[in-house]
Amino acid sequence: MTAAVLHGAKEIKIEPQPLPALNPGMVLLRVRRAGICGSDLHYFEHGYCAAFVPTRPFILGHEFTAEVAALADGVDSVKVGTRVTANPARSCGFCEFCKAGRPNLCRKIIMLGSASTKPPTDGAFAEFVTVRADQCHALPQEMSDELGAMIEPFAVALHAVKRAGVVSGKRVLVEGGGPIGLLVAMTARTFGAATVALSDIVASRRETAHKLGLDVTLDPSAKNLAGQVREIAGDGFDVVFEASGARPALRQAFDLVRTGGTIVQIGTLGTEDVPLPANLLMYRAINFIGSMRYGDVFDEAIRLIAANRIDLRPLITGVLPFADAGDAMRLAGDKNQAMKVQIQITKE
Amino acid sequence: MTAAVLHGAKEIKIEPQPLPALNPGMVLLRVRRAGICGSDLHYFEHGYCAAFVPTRPFILGHEFTAEVAALADGVDSVKVGTRVTANPARSCGFCEFCKAGRPNLCRKIIMLGSASTKPPTDGAFAEFVTVRADQCHALPQEMSDELGAMIEPFAVALHAVKRAGVVSGKRVLVEGGGPIGLLVAMTARTFGAATVALSDIVASRRETAHKLGLDVTLDPSAKNLAGQVREIAGDGFDVVFEASGARPALRQAFDLVRTGGTIVQIGTLGTEDVPLPANLLMYRAINFIGSMRYGDVFDEAIRLIAANRIDLRPLITGVLPFADAGDAMRLAGDKNQAMKVQIQITKE
Amino acid sequence: MTAAVLHGAKEIKIEPQPLPALNPGMVLLRVRRAGICGSDLHYFEHGYCAAFVPTRPFILGHEFTAEVAALADGVDSVKVGTRVTANPARSCGFCEFCKAGRPNLCRKIIMLGSASTKPPTDGAFAEFVTVRADQCHALPQEMSDELGAMIEPFAVALHAVKRAGVVSGKRVLVEGGGPIGLLVAMTARTFGAATVALSDIVASRRETAHKLGLDVTLDPSAKNLAGQVREIAGDGFDVVFEASGARPALRQAFDLVRTGGTIVQIGTLGTEDVPLPANLLMYRAINFIGSMRYGDVFDEAIRLIAANRIDLRPLITGVLPFADAGDAMRLAGDKNQAMKVQIQITKE
Amino acid sequence: MTAAVLHGAKEIKIEPQPLPALNPGMVLLRVRRAGICGSDLHYFEHGYCAAFVPTRPFILGHEFTAEVAALADGVDSVKVGTRVTANPARSCGFCEFCKAGRPNLCRKIIMLGSASTKPPTDGAFAEFVTVRADQCHALPQEMSDELGAMIEPFAVALHAVKRAGVVSGKRVLVEGGGPIGLLVAMTARTFGAATVALSDIVASRRETAHKLGLDVTLDPSAKNLAGQVREIAGDGFDVVFEASGARPALRQAFDLVRTGGTIVQIGTLGTEDVPLPANLLMYRAINFIGSMRYGDVFDEAIRLIAANRIDLRPLITGVLPFADAGDAMRLAGDKNQAMKVQIQITKE
Repeated sequence: MTAAVLHGAKEIKIEPQPLPALNPGMVLLRVRRAGICGSDLHYFEHGYCAAFVPTRPFILGHEFTAEVAALADGVDSVKVGTRVTANPARSCGFCEFCKAGRPNLCRKIIMLGSASTKPPTDGAFAEFVTVRADQCHALPQEMSDELGAMIEPFAVALHAVKRAGVVSGKRVLVEGGGPIGLLVAMTARTFGAATVALSDIVASRRETAHKLGLDVTLDPSAKNLAGQVREIAGDGFDVVFEASGARPALRQAFDLVRTGGTIVQIGTLGTEDVPLPANLLMYRAINFIGSMRYGDVFDEAIRLIAANRIDLRPLITGVLPFADAGDAMRLAGDKNQAMKVQIQITKE
Repeated sequence: MTAAVLHGAKEIKIEPQPLPALNPGMVLLRVRRAGICGSDLHYFEHGYCAAFVPTRPFILGHEFTAEVAALADGVDSVKVGTRVTANPARSCGFCEFCKAGRPNLCRKIIMLGSASTKPPTDGAFAEFVTVRADQCHALPQEMSDELGAMIEPFAVALHAVKRAGVVSGKRVLVEGGGPIGLLVAMTARTFGAATVALSDIVASRRETAHKLGLDVTLDPSAKNLAGQVREIAGDGFDVVFEASGARPALRQAFDLVRTGGTIVQIGTLGTEDVPLPANLLMYRAINFIGSMRYGDVFDEAIRLIAANRIDLRPLITGVLPFADAGDAMRLAGDKNQAMKVQIQITKE
Repeated sequence: MTAAVLHGAKEIKIEPQPLPALNPGMVLLRVRRAGICGSDLHYFEHGYCAAFVPTRPFILGHEFTAEVAALADGVDSVKVGTRVTANPARSCGFCEFCKAGRPNLCRKIIMLGSASTKPPTDGAFAEFVTVRADQCHALPQEMSDELGAMIEPFAVALHAVKRAGVVSGKRVLVEGGGPIGLLVAMTARTFGAATVALSDIVASRRETAHKLGLDVTLDPSAKNLAGQVREIAGDGFDVVFEASGARPALRQAFDLVRTGGTIVQIGTLGTEDVPLPANLLMYRAINFIGSMRYGDVFDEAIRLIAANRIDLRPLITGVLPFADAGDAMRLAGDKNQAMKVQIQITKE
Repeated sequence: MTAAVLHGAKEIKIEPQPLPALNPGMVLLRVRRAGICGSDLHYFEHGYCAAFVPTRPFILGHEFTAEVAALADGVDSVKVGTRVTANPARSCGFCEFCKAGRPNLCRKIIMLGSASTKPPTDGAFAEFVTVRADQCHALPQEMSDELGAMIEPFAVALHAVKRAGVVSGKRVLVEGGGPIGLLVAMTARTFGAATVALSDIVASRRETAHKLGLDVTLDPSAKNLAGQVREIAGDGFDVVFEASGARPALRQAFDLVRTGGTIVQIGTLGTEDVPLPANLLMYRAINFIGSMRYGDVFDEAIRLIAANRIDLRPLITGVLPFADAGDAMRLAGDKNQAMKVQIQITKE
């Protein structure tokens, strides 16, 4: 098969690779469309991502639409020919976290297109990829390949919103207007948040948010921020999602959240400690909640998109042919121009 | 002042009445627009409502928009001239239920326009009515009087949906296409339910639901109901709201709910016991939940309407002048023609 | 190996059986001590249990302590020689329920010692039994075999108490003084319920409850029951667990539960519908909750027993040698004499 | 009446004071026994407490047993002669927080024996004090005055444990062995936590914890702390309560809590920001929760003590006569000798 192999920083080669082995319980998928995630970009730009350093060249990609091409013996939960997306995080299914319905915390998790394992696990920027049968989630016929490849990032947002408890009827602020921040804001609106504000220090991102129909955007560095917040949310937001990964944004969340409210951390912050007002958290009874990837929300994500409860198409900047995977990475890395860039891996 | 006084079954007279006394902590409201509720109709048609038999002629009405006309000494939480709606249920504020955030369960509750107290408590089908200051909820300038008078029935639906836990992303069925059933269905959609089906045995009500944009309607007596449900919701609905008050509908809810799902009872069923599959409830781990009126959801209801998260105007059949209050009751009682009928009590 | 094989109603034979096959992922356990459950008794007395009719002679037993005797290739989560108890319900690990942390609702569940599958699945009244590796839960060295065999029934109670939400600080009633009812009552006390009352129509069962140190026992047929309840729990119990499986007990639960309170159904009731006050459930905002077997609470159960938070030994009526398995069944069936009867299958 | 009036740092005078006015809705209480809280000590030692600087001499004390001495007109929820304790925090009853069952977050709260209001609000180190009727909680006849005066600090612990979600069956660490830390640890045990460890840097406090029967104590500065934790709690504690108010203890909580676990902040930390590992909170899905005083848990606290679910007597260091209130303060301030010191204000 053909794959886009990462050989090091900025070095992606479209080259032949052996077909992945079809081990027991596994399914071979022919990838159709794949999206580029922020972590793919980190690998591409630096050759590694945070603490994850690949021990050999490997294939990125974990947001995608595919078609079931072959099944290991005995697999009967999916059928050859079915169009699916996949939960790229394969949890063990049997540890305390898996059995408690928190598979995202499983210590044995194997992530597609990631160097979190040694050797790294090949991903979906390839004609074929394998996943365990239960990782597959069938897509309805009407759902386009491009939307199928949006399910995974949507799942991140969906999980974060669930971690907040209930957002319906609440006043919500999302800090950070990147793809995940926008997805969280759109999800909060879909779930009936009464107010959804988005803050970003970059004006063009605030404009994008406006175009996506969000109620209000805020410049976190504005002098009259407190006054703006008072007008929008009275004594503060019921829920603040920190999706920027900026340390000052997290600190600011504690000033903008309402007494008794909730802050959800989604953005990656770097490993250094962040000075935070723990005393204020105590006497104002704030909940500060970490949100890590997603639980089993893929079918729910599919249902919501299929029912037109949320329209993710405006987030898709464009699609490039597989041969131009390197260009696609470069385009995705241009934060002024790009939201979600996709790659057309194979066609029908 | 002038009021519409209920003297007995079908007997409403527009007649002069003394202004209500402005006791400590209370606020005098000039009523502008009021809606007619199913319980108003019960009183009008029978002279009483369930176990509540009035001991003297009294004034109905508990869904309304009003203007603050006067304040008892020391009241400073509202201002004269402010346009408000009111939570018609005055809870004591200090019992175990009130302190636990469940004021709807307060045993000392005093309900406007109801014979649940002896003597009955006069309501809002009058030029003036009094409420305790905290019962007032200010309306935004842009919100029309007609929508202000919809807040109370919306609060019933909002509370019911909250009692279900989370409906976002879920498959929801509402049984019963009257005003409350429709409000519940619309609220579930606003809160991001992926599927919202409504069942009613009356075809015209299903048509109304369709016009309101609900995904699917079901005839509970259809022969192929099971097949229809399978197509819409697979192995059943995650949440079923029983809003019809029909005993067979409640029984059917247990067949249509998914294993591990939730049934919420909102409809009034009559006092006789209903045969229910308690063993199935056990081995399928079903939650069967009673929803009674509302907690303190009025400000949230106002926020949601003000932010256009939900549009309640299509539920309003029409408005009649105060002089025709009796006709308004008769129109409201015609279930083939009417959803929500309102009365214009006073004008600006 | 030797096993106690059920050939039909009242017909248990201790006889040679082939060793169970050690399929992939499985573990062979040498059973040491096993307890007799109510469902074992149903099979023994009638030859079947509810809708579960065995298609061949099979081996009962699903509450036990065992020693790991052999492992299928590749199994490394347990070690040969480790003393364990097992969760007898093998869920698939990958369906929507399993992934949501509700494995008890998995449709593919395979239950040891049960005819819920065709053919039936052999259980633990045998020298050897096989389970999937993740079904094993290691026991601490200090924990006796007899307590290890109590973990499974304790898990039933633990799950039921969790289904009630929080019982800590609450007023709790348990209806039914059989082993599960007593376990639920003891668990509620361990979890800090302020009041734990137990009702049973049989005086000897109320005496047993007293001996186990429960606060109060009630005779559900007592004339002054309402007065007794008022003294113990004021306006009613916050939580009522229905563990008797008696229809009148369930109906009574609705009279004894507090407004806003919770009823948990654990007892098996028979398939006929039970007339229940659904209108009262609505206006008193009652939660009626089904509790089915258990989620993944085995390690928690072991921790609680190991830490002496609960002492289950008084529930064990006695232990009989394997050769007398039939007598053990007969003793267990004598509800005046027996609580939990155990069988010594093998020794160290 | 006679009162212990704080005139400034270390200056308490037993002197005559006018009887407090009995305003509408209020109750006059004759104080019998009162306890000394950490905040009382702060006022005594510095003349102020954190940001709260008294504008005139005032009376401390908010943990006490009293007898109802007189009622304002119309008060009928308590009776003269009833022995009570009081919730010293008078919330407004009508704001969004009060109506949501979170009265501790009410912005209009008036706290007995505190300079959080201007002028300060007199407290219970006096023969008489007034509270609103609903602040009174009747004590059972069998409960001693000394235990009645422990209800308020117990309420702090009870609320903190509730904020953690469920502790039953969980592995719990409490950081800080002062009165509140010990109360939290004892409450967690009462609520069925499987493991309750207490850490304190002071050896004598660890000894006290041992005497109170806690499972394990830890020295947070021990070199082999990680090893000790592994033995007690495996991969970490499910819940960590930070009750020491020490910044390093809070930081350490993030290392000792399990993935997916919860940290509850109860200790007062000072206003400076604390460097915290927000990135770790995110990828390990930690909940960091502030706990502020208490909601309406007083009746529950009384029930738990009355039912002997928890024994708070070992926490009471001793009682001094009213004339020696100053000595009582000095004794309470000696952290090596004292836990809870009480004052006998009046007798029967």
